[in-house]
Amino acid sequence: MSNLNNSNILILATNGFQEDELFEPMSFFKSKDADVKLASPSLEEISAGEGDSRSIRPDLTFEDVKVSEFDALILPGGLANPDTLRQNEDAITLIRAFGTEGKTIGAICHAPWLLAEAGIVEGREITSFPSIKTDMKNAGATWVDKEVVCDNGIVTSRKPDDLPAFCAKIEEEILEGRHDRNLLRAA
Amino acid sequence: MSNLNNSNILILATNGFQEDELFEPMSFFKSKDADVKLASPSLEEISAGEGDSRSIRPDLTFEDVKVSEFDALILPGGLANPDTLRQNEDAITLIRAFGTEGKTIGAICHAPWLLAEAGIVEGREITSFPSIKTDMKNAGATWVDKEVVCDNGIVTSRKPDDLPAFCAKIEEEILEGRHDRNLLRAA
Repeated sequence: MSNLNNSNILILATNGFQEDELFEPMSFFKSKDADVKLASPSLEEISAGEGDSRSIRPDLTFEDVKVSEFDALILPGGLANPDTLRQNEDAITLIRAFGTEGKTIGAICHAPWLLAEAGIVEGREITSFPSIKTDMKNAGATWVDKEVVCDNGIVTSRKPDDLPAFCAKIEEEILEGRHDRNLLRAA
Repeated sequence: MSNLNNSNILILATNGFQEDELFEPMSFFKSKDADVKLASPSLEEISAGEGDSRSIRPDLTFEDVKVSEFDALILPGGLANPDTLRQNEDAITLIRAFGTEGKTIGAICHAPWLLAEAGIVEGREITSFPSIKTDMKNAGATWVDKEVVCDNGIVTSRKPDDLPAFCAKIEEEILEGRHDRNLLRAA
């Protein structure tokens, strides 16, 4: 039987996302009967990037997201996707809101950039794709090389191979409920 | 008449470079009779990325570079190119050597990531593609939004449109000669 049928999960992405890092968590949480929504800057179809990669139509725009309706936020990686989103004030405001409200956040690969942009990594244990290790350390995180790291409901992983551990840890954190945290210590 | 015919310029790049940011400085400095060499992780042809983008064969590998033979270093942007190079210890060691030896360094777009990786932006005025502004600030730089910024021989620009100003400022810095600096203040 499903154990997430009252859970609402939001995925944020735009063009240039890493394909598995969007579709695999989406399938995983839908298979658990969670309600999964994809938000983007607009309702135009977004694609994973080069060649004949998969596309998907977002369910809602960042402006239409009500944070109170969601239990968890998932941030897929890719290079262009987080590079674009970190310049989008609405995206960063949403991510920060999930942070301050103690909701579960999962970020994989290059997506921890978005956590740094939202100011919610300082003093926390974080992993990421190794190329952005220095950015994470400079943002005040303690960077570790593990398939999944969870620090008070903030779940991070390094790469597509880590997706099973990433999804399982996010599920566990959602079932734990809200996290009591004061994320914006540095703000 | 040319004014750079005794100058030796090194460009570092790998796959996924921004096309104009490699070829335009290369053409500019060759037209001034400078000797311009391209170094990469191996001697295999590298390409700008997607579709029918231009390719180029490197002149030498990072291991074969003798920093003493060059007057200036140029780092083109693109997303994948600096994301890959910042994980390459030989590349970072070379960049740091150009820094400590007071040689002119030019980095454009996402390439200032490499300066952060080499630990040579702290306390300096830097520009970059706006998406990495937070990474530059977290690395200790004072980030400014200008087509070209020069801080003691470290020349940075934001995007391909800035290339004319970027190349002109690098030329000026090469003609000034070595910069007396202690770049690794934080090391």
